Amino acid sequence: MSPCSAADVATLTASGMTQAVVDVICETGATAIERRSLTVAANELAITGLQGAANTNLLLFCSALVFFMQAGFAMLCAGSIRSKNVMNILIKNVLDACVGALAFFAVGYGLAYGRKTNKDTAGAYIGEGNFFLSNSATLTGEGWTNFLFNWAFAAAAATICSGAMAERTQFVAYLGYSALLTGFVYPVVVHWCWSSDGWISSFNSSKWSGVGFIDLAGSGVVHMVGGFAGLMGAIMLGPRTGRFGMNGQPVPMPGHNATLTVLGTFVLWVGWYGFNPGSVYALNDLASAEQVGRSAVMTTLAAATGGVATLFLHRAFNKVWDLVAVCNGILAGLVSITAGCHVMDTHWTIFTAFVSALILRGSAKLLLKLRIDDPLEAFPIHGACGVWGCLAVGLFAKKKFLGNENYGLVLGGGGDLIGVQITGVLAIAAWTSVTLGVFFFILRKLGLLRISGSEEMEGLDTSKHGGSAYNMEKGGMY
Amino acid sequence: MSPCSAADVATLTASGMTQAVVDVICETGATAIERRSLTVAANELAITGLQGAANTNLLLFCSALVFFMQAGFAMLCAGSIRSKNVMNILIKNVLDACVGALAFFAVGYGLAYGRKTNKDTAGAYIGEGNFFLSNSATLTGEGWTNFLFNWAFAAAAATICSGAMAERTQFVAYLGYSALLTGFVYPVVVHWCWSSDGWISSFNSSKWSGVGFIDLAGSGVVHMVGGFAGLMGAIMLGPRTGRFGMNGQPVPMPGHNATLTVLGTFVLWVGWYGFNPGSVYALNDLASAEQVGRSAVMTTLAAATGGVATLFLHRAFNKVWDLVAVCNGILAGLVSITAGCHVMDTHWTIFTAFVSALILRGSAKLLLKLRIDDPLEAFPIHGACGVWGCLAVGLFAKKKFLGNENYGLVLGGGGDLIGVQITGVLAIAAWTSVTLGVFFFILRKLGLLRISGSEEMEGLDTSKHGGSAYNMEKGGMY
Amino acid sequence: MSPCSAADVATLTASGMTQAVVDVICETGATAIERRSLTVAANELAITGLQGAANTNLLLFCSALVFFMQAGFAMLCAGSIRSKNVMNILIKNVLDACVGALAFFAVGYGLAYGRKTNKDTAGAYIGEGNFFLSNSATLTGEGWTNFLFNWAFAAAAATICSGAMAERTQFVAYLGYSALLTGFVYPVVVHWCWSSDGWISSFNSSKWSGVGFIDLAGSGVVHMVGGFAGLMGAIMLGPRTGRFGMNGQPVPMPGHNATLTVLGTFVLWVGWYGFNPGSVYALNDLASAEQVGRSAVMTTLAAATGGVATLFLHRAFNKVWDLVAVCNGILAGLVSITAGCHVMDTHWTIFTAFVSALILRGSAKLLLKLRIDDPLEAFPIHGACGVWGCLAVGLFAKKKFLGNENYGLVLGGGGDLIGVQITGVLAIAAWTSVTLGVFFFILRKLGLLRISGSEEMEGLDTSKHGGSAYNMEKGGMY
Repeated sequence: MSPCSAADVATLTASGMTQAVVDVICETGATAIERRSLTVAANELAITGLQGAANTNLLLFCSALVFFMQAGFAMLCAGSIRSKNVMNILIKNVLDACVGALAFFAVGYGLAYGRKTNKDTAGAYIGEGNFFLSNSATLTGEGWTNFLFNWAFAAAAATICSGAMAERTQFVAYLGYSALLTGFVYPVVVHWCWSSDGWISSFNSSKWSGVGFIDLAGSGVVHMVGGFAGLMGAIMLGPRTGRFGMNGQPVPMPGHNATLTVLGTFVLWVGWYGFNPGSVYALNDLASAEQVGRSAVMTTLAAATGGVATLFLHRAFNKVWDLVAVCNGILAGLVSITAGCHVMDTHWTIFTAFVSALILRGSAKLLLKLRIDDPLEAFPIHGACGVWGCLAVGLFAKKKFLGNENYGLVLGGGGDLIGVQITGVLAIAAWTSVTLGVFFFILRKLGLLRISGSEEMEGLDTSKHGGSAYNMEKGGMY
Repeated sequence: MSPCSAADVATLTASGMTQAVVDVICETGATAIERRSLTVAANELAITGLQGAANTNLLLFCSALVFFMQAGFAMLCAGSIRSKNVMNILIKNVLDACVGALAFFAVGYGLAYGRKTNKDTAGAYIGEGNFFLSNSATLTGEGWTNFLFNWAFAAAAATICSGAMAERTQFVAYLGYSALLTGFVYPVVVHWCWSSDGWISSFNSSKWSGVGFIDLAGSGVVHMVGGFAGLMGAIMLGPRTGRFGMNGQPVPMPGHNATLTVLGTFVLWVGWYGFNPGSVYALNDLASAEQVGRSAVMTTLAAATGGVATLFLHRAFNKVWDLVAVCNGILAGLVSITAGCHVMDTHWTIFTAFVSALILRGSAKLLLKLRIDDPLEAFPIHGACGVWGCLAVGLFAKKKFLGNENYGLVLGGGGDLIGVQITGVLAIAAWTSVTLGVFFFILRKLGLLRISGSEEMEGLDTSKHGGSAYNMEKGGMY
Repeated sequence: MSPCSAADVATLTASGMTQAVVDVICETGATAIERRSLTVAANELAITGLQGAANTNLLLFCSALVFFMQAGFAMLCAGSIRSKNVMNILIKNVLDACVGALAFFAVGYGLAYGRKTNKDTAGAYIGEGNFFLSNSATLTGEGWTNFLFNWAFAAAAATICSGAMAERTQFVAYLGYSALLTGFVYPVVVHWCWSSDGWISSFNSSKWSGVGFIDLAGSGVVHMVGGFAGLMGAIMLGPRTGRFGMNGQPVPMPGHNATLTVLGTFVLWVGWYGFNPGSVYALNDLASAEQVGRSAVMTTLAAATGGVATLFLHRAFNKVWDLVAVCNGILAGLVSITAGCHVMDTHWTIFTAFVSALILRGSAKLLLKLRIDDPLEAFPIHGACGVWGCLAVGLFAKKKFLGNENYGLVLGGGGDLIGVQITGVLAIAAWTSVTLGVFFFILRKLGLLRISGSEEMEGLDTSKHGGSAYNMEKGGMY
């Protein structure tokens, strides 16, 4: 099976070479080489295909997990409020996904990442093209799932807010908020922080002050946006009737179903394994695999620490083993590690999550003192712990994982990174608070924000949604 | 580190070549080449392995997602009926998965795709071998997960029907139905449409009229089968006692728990990311990745459009923001894009889903007018919108995505594709309606189909399943 | 485009070769070869990367699925008990995941697989290093997700027990149990059976008696540990007040919500597609893909058989179509195939699961006869069927799948394998029963194990967790 053709052999032999020489050379003859070269090239092509497919695969399943968080938020929200408003909050959660998909498709994704056709850059503050996925003709598998993944994030950001505004918001106001957030407010923050054109983005090669804002999966971009939106909503709405007594002391309004709260928490935790590892955006070589795997472990340690710390905090101060508090503690831990799970060591991860439990408790207390009624503690969990998550990166990010000199302040990396992190946090907080604060304020002035007192008494389900969520035979005996 | 062996060098030198010539040749010497060739061959083998594993991976996780839809259907069904029949419908859902697995393993999979041993084709109307997975000795990873994925589909098809027959069907009748559907009725349709031997299958190289029926994930094969089965069941059973008043006007029978309905809807939506993208059956190169990613995005846009369109339709006509209607609208959108999510552009996807919301509403109204009681609107969602999904492919499928001249009528592709789609729809509707119509009719004549009036009054849980699903202390106060 | 450099050509020509000879040789010239070699080497590297990433991907998503089982156990447990203790059991489930993560991170993972730094082996009975993931600097993606996957298993093992001890255990006792199990008792069993250093592990090249204990995903390692822990807990606690009448006859204490039971069962079944296929630990070539796919199919057949067999068993003996029994039957089938789903044929899988339904029923009856109160049948399902799953491997494991001569006794493989399986089962049962038996006994003597009679009457939620899980308006009317 000599790789030389008959003509090759003849040529060599005619040159006066011995048969032995021809044998040596012919093992490398043209035909064999061509065959091998083709295989090598085919292998190269197949590998490129597999690499693209592997990333598509990661993003597809992580998108499914992140979207599943909508179910988690829905159960968490429903379980944490009174039974008379369950239909109302559920329809908001469902519509965050639907309205979010259409708004993000039409406008949001373009504002987040889009460029004008034939331009290879966009402005530093807002995206400029690819509305209605108009550039989709050239999208790869990764490109399509990238949209999917980002939509699931947008829907999550929107839904965070619904908990803070529960039980007293007009439905149409919420619909408007949902479209505004997913179509405009959130995408702008994404552009700033995650687009390669964004003014503070770490993916921007000519980035602000030479150091980029690091927020892997969105302690700031997603959770702060949702949390601060909720805070503005809760402030503009005012508390639920009866939430604070004569002297301003909070009156407990326990949720109607703790089983749903736990189900929601577990679903969210599961979804976080799409949220954080998926934000690496690649799982097709050893480096990305290491980052994906490590992020998932840090996510786990943070959730666990947040839950355990909150358990004992509540036991110490309130004398009960508080299930709902533990659930919130888990979420606080998760939020706090979402920015930096890919750049922090195990012990700093645990420390960060432990602090988040304190921040959760402190900020929740503060809201009550200020008579701000946030039924699901959405701001303490997502807003306050989101801030902390961004800052923790500036404090504890490890040089080895970052690959440059601007690492965590506590580890000796100097003040540049924490400076950028603070800047990013301030920018996100200001942008979200101002845009949505103005929006909610206008709605309030127009009388479109809050439901009437009688509707609130009766419950939104009967007044607006055609009946109760629950219709048990024989008064619930079964 | 010359790749030439000592003998090689000696041979060359002895031939009178200068050292320089030997050097040039020897870099291509036999040993080095052999080493490289081995690596190239090993790479090729490793790539083949990775490609097979990547597809297995896709099918494994998509199977898990599709099977998770059983939980979604269970919650949706349970939430949408009265509390006295919850155990009854749940046990049906659970058994659809169990009975379906055994029936599909024993008979169904063979009837769907099987060939006789040593034959490389099967008849155009029904599969002929591989019963009890008897050919499993040669199954690859993709082969095994292919069975898994198809079983999950079969179970989904079966479960669709349970909603339409809820609250009045004898348990044994349903068990028989479940085995019949997963073991015979559904597999035959799969053979027609998805097997490479099927008479109308687009995977059949010598296909009917030169054009194949296009139904990626089963608007027709799965949803129409389930939906028409449910329709026949609902007709043969007659309405629930009290469902229609004296003058035939429908009397509302609201489900007992809307939270479960929402949970079910979200789970189904999540599951659809296995249903549709998984039906590409490959995710190991750029082409399959593109198709997988695009299918997932179209799935999202369709769900969102169905939900939002239904929201405003119900608001316009019924003056309420109807949560359950929105959930059904989402499902209608999903069903309508299941056939064509891989061949339709974004705007036609949105249009298709928008129309599905109208079809849902129209067909639900029609059923009520005809006094057919379908408690979960299973026929409007899965049957009617399933028909529409198949037809939409014939209207809007894009040439570029199909790769041939028989594309959508509206886009100028001529009438061949829509002709095949209509043929397929008629064939599926006729086959399902006749086989199951006869089956249910016989059961009715034998008095085995419907429960007694007293059992219906009392509820099936107490009469047949040993007690209620719910046993709350203190009358549900907690 | 000759691959020869100009110097190469000059060298060859100067040697007196004709142009024709130079042409032949030059197609193999150094530059081209180098280029090709580089590509081949790059391909090789890329393939290694893809292989590692593929396994990381498998473990990431299987970890998410297995962790999702916590939600399944939570719903199953909550639904199966009385409504006054729901908060109590839910917080236990939540904390099993949290405490388990911290205990497994700190100690458990090291005791399971760890070696001292710079040693490449550990003792046969317990791991010796890598506490607090101290060796994490060198972890690959697979390494990180390996920790994740094993943590999810540890949490599952811990949670199994909570069902058996429901409605009467002091919270602090349970917390201690949870830490002890995930940090010590379970990891030791893992070391024995799954570490390459373990005395009975089939991954140990110098294994006990030349044959290793085969337990793919933990019929013994996970389910027996959880089940026997639960049995010891139930014995030490004694039955719930009122569970047995004057003459020792059991008094039914139905769960408060069968919908949750079904949801939990489906979630567990879904999770099992991470549990079993993920335990192959690889999905990057055709061999691993085949094993993964086959395991998933056997998992399905076992679940289905367990469910259907239990349905008819209960119908035959109890005259009802018992939903909760079917759910338990499904779980029994799943547990019984967890050890051997990768080494058993379809028919033996079905037989194994059928027997598990009998074992479930028999052992549940036996517990009642012995007046041991296991509210969720945790021991019958996980303990007894876990034993059976390990033994079934010794009886029915197929030579072809094992690749050696020590295969199933029934298939003619001799007694060595069943001998090892029996040894493993005895060792796990003894270890778990003694360690946890002593632990629970000491707690009982100290009065720390069981709650007071008044607390039990009132329910744990009110006495310990600050209120009821359920707070429905208008007495549950909605």
